[in-house]
Amino acid sequence: MSRPVHVVLAVLAFLPISTVAIAADDAEKPNIVVFLVDDLGWQDVSVPMWTKRTPFNDHFRTPNVERLAATGVRFWQSYSCAVCSPTRTSLMTGQNAARHHVTQWTRDPSRDPSGKTDRLESPKGWRLEGLQPGDVTLPALLQKRGYFTIHAGKAHWGAAGTPGSDPRQLGFDVNIAGHEAGGPGSYHGQHDYSAQWRNGSSVWDVPGLEHYHGLPVHLTDATTVEALRAVDRALDDEKPFYLYLAHYAVHAPIEEHRPYADRYRESGVDEPESRYASMVEGFDASLGAVLRHLERRGVAESTLVVFTSDNGGLSVHSRGQTPRGTGKNTHNWPLREGKGSAYEGGTRVPTVISWAKRQDDHLAQQRLPIEADAVRETPIIVEDLFPTILRWTGAELPADHPIDGVDLSPLLTSDEGISRERPLLFHYPHVWGPKGKGYQPHTSLRLGDWKAIYFYEPRRWELYDLASDLSEEHDLSSEEPERLAMLSARMLELLKARGAQWPTVTANGEAEPIQRPGTD
Amino acid sequence: MSRPVHVVLAVLAFLPISTVAIAADDAEKPNIVVFLVDDLGWQDVSVPMWTKRTPFNDHFRTPNVERLAATGVRFWQSYSCAVCSPTRTSLMTGQNAARHHVTQWTRDPSRDPSGKTDRLESPKGWRLEGLQPGDVTLPALLQKRGYFTIHAGKAHWGAAGTPGSDPRQLGFDVNIAGHEAGGPGSYHGQHDYSAQWRNGSSVWDVPGLEHYHGLPVHLTDATTVEALRAVDRALDDEKPFYLYLAHYAVHAPIEEHRPYADRYRESGVDEPESRYASMVEGFDASLGAVLRHLERRGVAESTLVVFTSDNGGLSVHSRGQTPRGTGKNTHNWPLREGKGSAYEGGTRVPTVISWAKRQDDHLAQQRLPIEADAVRETPIIVEDLFPTILRWTGAELPADHPIDGVDLSPLLTSDEGISRERPLLFHYPHVWGPKGKGYQPHTSLRLGDWKAIYFYEPRRWELYDLASDLSEEHDLSSEEPERLAMLSARMLELLKARGAQWPTVTANGEAEPIQRPGTD
Repeated sequence: MSRPVHVVLAVLAFLPISTVAIAADDAEKPNIVVFLVDDLGWQDVSVPMWTKRTPFNDHFRTPNVERLAATGVRFWQSYSCAVCSPTRTSLMTGQNAARHHVTQWTRDPSRDPSGKTDRLESPKGWRLEGLQPGDVTLPALLQKRGYFTIHAGKAHWGAAGTPGSDPRQLGFDVNIAGHEAGGPGSYHGQHDYSAQWRNGSSVWDVPGLEHYHGLPVHLTDATTVEALRAVDRALDDEKPFYLYLAHYAVHAPIEEHRPYADRYRESGVDEPESRYASMVEGFDASLGAVLRHLERRGVAESTLVVFTSDNGGLSVHSRGQTPRGTGKNTHNWPLREGKGSAYEGGTRVPTVISWAKRQDDHLAQQRLPIEADAVRETPIIVEDLFPTILRWTGAELPADHPIDGVDLSPLLTSDEGISRERPLLFHYPHVWGPKGKGYQPHTSLRLGDWKAIYFYEPRRWELYDLASDLSEEHDLSSEEPERLAMLSARMLELLKARGAQWPTVTANGEAEPIQRPGTD
Repeated sequence: MSRPVHVVLAVLAFLPISTVAIAADDAEKPNIVVFLVDDLGWQDVSVPMWTKRTPFNDHFRTPNVERLAATGVRFWQSYSCAVCSPTRTSLMTGQNAARHHVTQWTRDPSRDPSGKTDRLESPKGWRLEGLQPGDVTLPALLQKRGYFTIHAGKAHWGAAGTPGSDPRQLGFDVNIAGHEAGGPGSYHGQHDYSAQWRNGSSVWDVPGLEHYHGLPVHLTDATTVEALRAVDRALDDEKPFYLYLAHYAVHAPIEEHRPYADRYRESGVDEPESRYASMVEGFDASLGAVLRHLERRGVAESTLVVFTSDNGGLSVHSRGQTPRGTGKNTHNWPLREGKGSAYEGGTRVPTVISWAKRQDDHLAQQRLPIEADAVRETPIIVEDLFPTILRWTGAELPADHPIDGVDLSPLLTSDEGISRERPLLFHYPHVWGPKGKGYQPHTSLRLGDWKAIYFYEPRRWELYDLASDLSEEHDLSSEEPERLAMLSARMLELLKARGAQWPTVTANGEAEPIQRPGTD
């Protein structure tokens, strides 16, 4: 993964940032909570994650996300990868998927979960074993800095049977419920969080919550309780903590989180959507419980919270009628498509950064000041969280570890300091599974308001002006050939610089790079 | 509480028991689980706790009580006191309420919760401060024997602000959720297990489960999870454990335990009864979770389980239509009345004793053998559990601590060994609150099949033949004056021997003893 040649570039990207003063001595290590929801769509919260309010904001109830947004900054152009393991690995490493090579979700180290097109298959040598001990990881760097590091929920880094399947091998002091699987067998304690009640495979058995087996405690709640207990361990030992609370929710199976579905059913929402909404309320209550516990323990004012999702909302497996009543593939409206796709619905996610409790003298104390109830339009991407958290905590980046993210701290006080023309790269050279437009192997590049997408099969370029066409309805690739040529050149340059791997031509086993526009 | 003059009697009662061999060396200390349900009526389980099956057995669903009964012994003439603190104190001390003087429920050490009649009030000097450090208690004796002692659920011993309100002051190594209150503010984690959501007093706030606050986890489930965690502590330290799991359920407030109520609602059961039944299923699932966890940890075959209730089912505050459809005060049918009353509905409780898992060579190992799926009709009473558990564990009874219970071990293999003519005394010289027949201050004595009740105001004797009149419909006090005289003499003798306290005449502050029949 490490390529020394890129170190200089990466460090340069990391250095010239903001003049915000953050105390980095031992007394000033803030606690960090990364609250990561799985498969949560861009608008699946009750606070607008856009410049406008959507029907989704009225449909869903997330008072605690609202509260966090009211005291912090939300990013309406925030991106993850199109599927989960790549996002999670970027957060752990600060690297873009093109660089870390965990470009697809992981589980079985001997079997690529990807499909094939007529002509292409996955890149040779993509890391289907996932993240492993020896890789530089955020929690390991925080451990070195004196943090107690807590993993709770879905891990989905190293594949089954590899050391990396255990978060404790990747820098976490504690592992709650995490292993190689990307989803739970069930959210219900009565089902032991296993799929065995429907004769499903035991590979989905959530590990380590045996005390809850047989009891009607939702997985989100059990995970929360255990996470808070681990937080107490840190506080009792007077150590700062890093809590990575990555709920399995709201990933499939879409099962009811009682009692939250009742309200939706009673208002006439159909069953799948009622269940989904109950899972949304469920994680929101978990966020509320975390915020309350931090306050109870007197550390809310010294704890930073990042709220985000690992990819766009699942859309191809329609859950039912959306609140807009338009059925399938509108779950990320106004964005096009959802999880796994090249379009915005696949990668754009709700993101909030805030102190767990606002303190007027965060400024006076030279603690990281954060504007209240602020919205940013500067585009950001998940790997940015890595240098951001290093900066907050004073943890050290190893000199030989190149990263692609940048410190987001400047954006906490204004919408300046990070270029809106920074190129954001999305490299997903795999067949995810579902068919349809946008779900083919692809790479895309966002540059300013423009977005170029390259599909590897059939070889095709698309170009969108997101400023005027957020829903990506008007492909301008023919109308703007020069702009497309420029974006494609930047894309290729970035892919090469990051050591990206190309899809393999099944017939001859050779890699097939991007074909520049007009060369076909 | 200690009266040396009674030691000889007490020890004699304790000695001449069974020839069952129980290994008492260190390697053979069985774990003990006392699973105490609050306010559970005699027939509120799906396994018959009688010689006949009742409609209640068909209505309620308690598969884990069934399982326990199938591998153990159930007692259909098992008694507690009419209200909770007296029962709980008898279990802790081995003493009858007439002796330990915690004859009423406790909470506020400065205010007697009892009502008054026109003429009488509570005995002077009853222990309204409840059990306190310095009192001999079962868990303290087990601690001395090397046990790790766990309190989980409702304590209700020492009154508020006294050391005895904390179970850790009474011999428990761990306290989960226990304090002075006899009920929870709410069973719902969303309500923080507090009554504050209905502007109720904070005295009902369940302590110590803050990690669950704001989350939809039922109190029964939270208590279970914490109890199992404490069991793990004992096992990890290779210590035998005493788990006193005394659920707040099924005490009021009668709140839904999700998802169990749905089935009852759908079958047309009214709302209060559906909720109540859901609470019953809820504790049963907890019992199941405990049994499973013991098996998971490999100790089920070395763990003895006692299942019982602290008094009869609450009947005066009718929950709704009973399964029999006959409304108020039939919840303990065929028993008369319920919690707080002198009649059988007040004191008769479902009781099961079993190994957590049956092992064929319990016999071969000379471990305490227990007959499977057996029913006993020998009458027993809650203070019997104290010497029984001492016997099982090899814990030592202090020579200066008189007890009234007897070791029940003989009844585990046959219905012999403990006299059915043993007098069982019920001394409740208080006004509980609810009005109606049976709820006045009283003392009763069961002797063989006969039961005499004395009500202090108006002074009145009643006599029942439980063998032919389980429902206490035919008062035979006039027809059987000689038998009544005999029973009343035994009652008075026992009361005096145990140092019972009499109700106080409000007008002159003097104690008013029982008036023997015919002396009025």
